[in-house]
Amino acid sequence: MVSTLTIPDKIENALNSIEYSKSPKELYEPISYILSLGGKRIRPTLVLIGCEMFGGDIDQAIDTAIGIEMFHNFTLLHDDIMDNAPLRRSKPTVHEKWNTNIAILSGDTMFIKSVQYISKVRNDIIKDVLSLFNESALIVCEGQQYDMNFEERNDVSIEEYIHMIQAKTATLLACSLKLGAIIGNASDTDAQELYNFGINIGIAFQLKDDLLDVYGESGKFGKQVGGDIIANKKTYLLIKARELAQNSTSEELNSWLESKENEQKVEMITAIYDQLNIRTITECVIDEYYNKAIANLSKVSVEESKKEHLKQLTDKLMVREV
Amino acid sequence: MVSTLTIPDKIENALNSIEYSKSPKELYEPISYILSLGGKRIRPTLVLIGCEMFGGDIDQAIDTAIGIEMFHNFTLLHDDIMDNAPLRRSKPTVHEKWNTNIAILSGDTMFIKSVQYISKVRNDIIKDVLSLFNESALIVCEGQQYDMNFEERNDVSIEEYIHMIQAKTATLLACSLKLGAIIGNASDTDAQELYNFGINIGIAFQLKDDLLDVYGESGKFGKQVGGDIIANKKTYLLIKARELAQNSTSEELNSWLESKENEQKVEMITAIYDQLNIRTITECVIDEYYNKAIANLSKVSVEESKKEHLKQLTDKLMVREV
Repeated sequence: MVSTLTIPDKIENALNSIEYSKSPKELYEPISYILSLGGKRIRPTLVLIGCEMFGGDIDQAIDTAIGIEMFHNFTLLHDDIMDNAPLRRSKPTVHEKWNTNIAILSGDTMFIKSVQYISKVRNDIIKDVLSLFNESALIVCEGQQYDMNFEERNDVSIEEYIHMIQAKTATLLACSLKLGAIIGNASDTDAQELYNFGINIGIAFQLKDDLLDVYGESGKFGKQVGGDIIANKKTYLLIKARELAQNSTSEELNSWLESKENEQKVEMITAIYDQLNIRTITECVIDEYYNKAIANLSKVSVEESKKEHLKQLTDKLMVREV
Repeated sequence: MVSTLTIPDKIENALNSIEYSKSPKELYEPISYILSLGGKRIRPTLVLIGCEMFGGDIDQAIDTAIGIEMFHNFTLLHDDIMDNAPLRRSKPTVHEKWNTNIAILSGDTMFIKSVQYISKVRNDIIKDVLSLFNESALIVCEGQQYDMNFEERNDVSIEEYIHMIQAKTATLLACSLKLGAIIGNASDTDAQELYNFGINIGIAFQLKDDLLDVYGESGKFGKQVGGDIIANKKTYLLIKARELAQNSTSEELNSWLESKENEQKVEMITAIYDQLNIRTITECVIDEYYNKAIANLSKVSVEESKKEHLKQLTDKLMVREV
């Protein structure tokens, strides 16, 4: 039976039909809350697209897709505690709305539920699926630890930064696609090519995020332009600027990094970025990773028409202005 | 090949041979640290004993045993954050020695590693094993949430308390035994009987803990007699005392609960317990659960000699003075 639901509808339906125990409500309400905050549902979409590409039945992949979205939201929940973030998608974070203990424990619970969902796959692939998922989950935690370590350091290299975003962001995107491919019975080679695609496109996405924080249109989705600059976040842009700035420019940059005059700080550091050509440099690197990703995808041995869905999604995410 | 190592040696060897990634060290050092603090390793022992009882090869159960010990230590690590505990086995807790963020994230990492270990079981039982483990893990989290909720309440009933300790403590013991039984190819009925044994003996252990906190020998293992009394912890003893105390005794109990004079507080509340016969009442309830457990064990359809190892361990844990 061909399902008439679109992929986004399937995902929302599945998320809405998750059954939570009634008690203790302090444990389950935060899970329902964070999952209801929305988001682009990129990762579960990638699971389903990865499966569909190989002619797999996406209904067989929906539990894994939900497991991945559950895991992703668990990482957001715990990351928000660690980053002391007050808001998530313009709504209070779980540790703000409830408290830190509840956020730790409901996060742990989400993680267990994600393993439950992912364990529902067919017996013949369960070992491969769990092995990929567990390994990826470990790498995501490592990425978060590197990210926290970088906050304390002023000598982060571009190489270290790319390694961190690969771990923290790209790995789960790659894992999602490969899980879908495994469920869709892709060959090992194709599944791995799709994984590599996910890594490269994931790095490109994150670099685009870094760029949009400074050069994106302001006001949309409540994001503050220059938020990363204000927070002295070690983004690609800042690391590159520090690498390139010399003498007086370097001193100027360092002195503005210490400023508490947020508006002026954003303006002046952006001016330094402009002077150092950071925007173009970053765009070139994004293109480089994007092209690597496209090369990976071209090696996947299915008809080009089967790759359309993934290409469309990727392009939509790459051309976004915010 | 018959292994010449005893169960405790097998467990310590396996724990000592866990390989940790070198980087980021902030993520992996706390895991190695908390696992090195020792402890009785009851849960992994139960996995191996559960397997051995049915003639299973305990070398097949060792990964699951390590996974369970890893999971248990993950819960300790996160519970210590939530309880703001400075010490664990007389050593600084992870959040004290490092910081809270590292404790959250290295805890998350331990959970992933526990799933990795548990996923190593044979294909024919992996679904049953994961289903039991995940379900038990959820119940443990629920138990911890109930325990935290109880801190804010003065009307916790005995029934609610037993439900909480069953979730927080007894479930993982029961799960450990049943996992071993599944790996040892026990019948479903036998595996479930062993699970029920674990639940009842687990409740008995926790009640014994409550009792020893007040009536145990002082000084051993650095435990402070009356620690629960000082912290106003809702133990079986306190809940029962509140249920039984009337008029002036009730007022006296409530007034001592507010006292900051720790030594006198322990002395006076113990005197009220004595007056209300709380020690004997608790001992009777412990016996009740112990007897239920023994009845469960008697139904397990293996020769009595095969049950000796579990009986010995249980008795050792039941007769401990501290």
